[in-house]
Amino acid sequence: MSGLPTIRALQQALSNNETSSVELVAAALDRIADPAGEGARAFTRVYADQAMQAAQASDTLRKAGLARSPLEGLPISVKDLFDVAGDTTTAGSVVLKDKPAATRNALVVQRLLDAGAVLVGRTNMTEFAYSGLGINPHYGSPSSPWDRETGRISGGSSSGAGVAVADQMSVMSLGTDTGGSIRIPSAFCGITGFKPTARRIPSDGTLPLSSSLDSSGPLAASVECCAIVDAILAGKPAHDLNVPEAKQLRFAVPSSMVLEDADDHVLAVFEQALDALRQAGAQIDTIDIPEFERLPYINRKGGLIAAEAYAWHAELIEEGHDKYDPLVVSRILRGRDMTAADYIEVLEERPKWQRAVGARLAYYDALLMPTTPLVAPAIKALQADEDTYFSTNLTILRNPTFINYLDGCGLSLPCHPAGTAPVGLMVAGPAMRDTHILGVGLQVERVLEAVRNA
Amino acid sequence: MSGLPTIRALQQALSNNETSSVELVAAALDRIADPAGEGARAFTRVYADQAMQAAQASDTLRKAGLARSPLEGLPISVKDLFDVAGDTTTAGSVVLKDKPAATRNALVVQRLLDAGAVLVGRTNMTEFAYSGLGINPHYGSPSSPWDRETGRISGGSSSGAGVAVADQMSVMSLGTDTGGSIRIPSAFCGITGFKPTARRIPSDGTLPLSSSLDSSGPLAASVECCAIVDAILAGKPAHDLNVPEAKQLRFAVPSSMVLEDADDHVLAVFEQALDALRQAGAQIDTIDIPEFERLPYINRKGGLIAAEAYAWHAELIEEGHDKYDPLVVSRILRGRDMTAADYIEVLEERPKWQRAVGARLAYYDALLMPTTPLVAPAIKALQADEDTYFSTNLTILRNPTFINYLDGCGLSLPCHPAGTAPVGLMVAGPAMRDTHILGVGLQVERVLEAVRNA
Repeated sequence: MSGLPTIRALQQALSNNETSSVELVAAALDRIADPAGEGARAFTRVYADQAMQAAQASDTLRKAGLARSPLEGLPISVKDLFDVAGDTTTAGSVVLKDKPAATRNALVVQRLLDAGAVLVGRTNMTEFAYSGLGINPHYGSPSSPWDRETGRISGGSSSGAGVAVADQMSVMSLGTDTGGSIRIPSAFCGITGFKPTARRIPSDGTLPLSSSLDSSGPLAASVECCAIVDAILAGKPAHDLNVPEAKQLRFAVPSSMVLEDADDHVLAVFEQALDALRQAGAQIDTIDIPEFERLPYINRKGGLIAAEAYAWHAELIEEGHDKYDPLVVSRILRGRDMTAADYIEVLEERPKWQRAVGARLAYYDALLMPTTPLVAPAIKALQADEDTYFSTNLTILRNPTFINYLDGCGLSLPCHPAGTAPVGLMVAGPAMRDTHILGVGLQVERVLEAVRNA
Repeated sequence: MSGLPTIRALQQALSNNETSSVELVAAALDRIADPAGEGARAFTRVYADQAMQAAQASDTLRKAGLARSPLEGLPISVKDLFDVAGDTTTAGSVVLKDKPAATRNALVVQRLLDAGAVLVGRTNMTEFAYSGLGINPHYGSPSSPWDRETGRISGGSSSGAGVAVADQMSVMSLGTDTGGSIRIPSAFCGITGFKPTARRIPSDGTLPLSSSLDSSGPLAASVECCAIVDAILAGKPAHDLNVPEAKQLRFAVPSSMVLEDADDHVLAVFEQALDALRQAGAQIDTIDIPEFERLPYINRKGGLIAAEAYAWHAELIEEGHDKYDPLVVSRILRGRDMTAADYIEVLEERPKWQRAVGARLAYYDALLMPTTPLVAPAIKALQADEDTYFSTNLTILRNPTFINYLDGCGLSLPCHPAGTAPVGLMVAGPAMRDTHILGVGLQVERVLEAVRNA
């Protein structure tokens, strides 16, 4: 766990009258507004007045015994690509700035509000969610909570979401994940994030990057926090999770690609996490997944993301190419050169690839790998050089992307010793294994506590 | 009804020992082999020995009281794009002639054999199923049973399937329908065909034209014959169809496009069918479906078919462009020029278009329209001129194609007075309304009997 207050702990404090929604929301707004903090870069929009009014209403309801869900009265934020009624959704861009305002909330935003959550603002992101670094030339690049003197990336594309949770500007941030955009900022910000199976969470009112791959999920303090939010996003009753004992668990670590180019710190921390799980009785096998080696080839022309992003952006690029982040638009434009046959090839490879990987995973409860092989790089180094930006981006997206192409689900849990550079442990599985992965994640989190506090 | 013996009547005759499978199969094989008939052009392959042996086995089983289904012992045929173990599937082409033989039957072929049907052969088709005319330069073009002196097209792409049923070379022919390829030959051959909702029937072992649009279904003597076969193809128990009374029925006739360029005979016969239904008490409304007018624009670059066909054929065209029917390959090649964004646009328009059309149809039991607006044209006229081939093809495919893009289902029933040029009445509905359309079709068929025999 991140050490941050959990949804359950905050709800307990609210029930006991040790705090109030007004107090929690005011504190979150203060942190966002603090000029010494990252609020100005983590948020693209703050709803201070509405949030304080919603908090008052929540406290009033609570006094009447009417808590709507475990999110009742808690400050949350949503990534700048979810529609909020009355506001224009800009997705971290300037090119959409003058477009009409949304007339209704994204369905997932509405579900969070219906659950009693208090929306404090919209979080910054990589322009149009198309990079794992979290650098944004228009609205600034929020920095990871670790080593703020250097100024390291928070990870992307849900960059502000990661920082907003890590810096207690919101108890939960809603993000999206097309190739790692929830899991990467979770890893670099030392928090927990969950990328669900895409189809489980509705995308109405959510600005797309890639309709085949986009998924929406929480960044928060713990696995339980993610599970609470996931059920609300899915419009389902609270998950009734089965938490297996550690000695019942069977994990697979891919021998293919996932540790390539890894920083020593990441390797050491990852090995330490595996050791802790082994000592707790879990079985951990190293397995070949040669399909992973084939994915870069399948995606050599840009893959589903470039094709689908270009289809969505074509007109907009014609209108305002110069207003785009050049490091984003250049990658969207790869999709322009893809033919229908190129795209159909990637679509048709996918179920075969999924079946082959699925067969390898059938025996295991989850795949384990570092969320990203790198420690968060310095923002300036990435801004200084395009080649570094592109190559670092590819390395950081590599591991999470396997799970998106698999149509799977995955957690990123912090697994580094306190005080060291944040490292995420990805616990992932195939499509629709979400509640199993969340249950397994709860057990992994317990085992990792020992490492984290060592 | 076509006047041909139905599956039910034949099964009754078999039960009563008035005939045997050996007798029925031998008669079918004799008609195929008759040099005065169309067998040589309707079939690309005949399984005379195996069929006779299967017929003997069926008769033996029947004596023991072991009839496997209502198809037990009946001669059937399958279009040349369904795999038959031990044979190379050529799909009416020569370019696949030297490819390896299939190692197992297409799943639908296996289901028919498991149901006790006797496979007499594989039927001819438009090369790779990519035209509604049914002209094939490699294996000949079977002619419609009407006006054989002139030699008119049987319709395509399941050209041989239509003729095989009409000329009693098989009781049922299995066809495919991507843009009308079951319904058009049914219309031109004066028989009944059913295009099911694509996803209901498995495509394993079926050579694709367009993975988004391909569907597999029966051509046969009556609606009930189609319903019997459809349940077997779907791997389900026999349909328990609800046949509404005529006065309960509500039909919609589109005012948009479906009667454009229609021959007088088709218009007159169609009006006569509507009158008969009205007189029987059915409600018939003419409604606007402006989405139909938009479909040619959506498909202006070739649509799903050209893109998906090219993706499948790209390598093969490189190997042997000259071996293709030039009138087919030129249209497949339109898909080469489609970009990923063009293709994604068609994919993304589709659910919106389906919702809009679906909303207009919600009140109605079925759409009614002529299957094709034309009487079967002379084969020679189409062979003589490329422009005539292309424009006639577009006109003939136009109406059925609406139902494929809708992901719907539809019957074509003969509705012309006996002795006149065959005209098909399409009775169609949206996705997964198959049993309703079959039930409605049974009632429509009863009402039309009066017209047919007038």
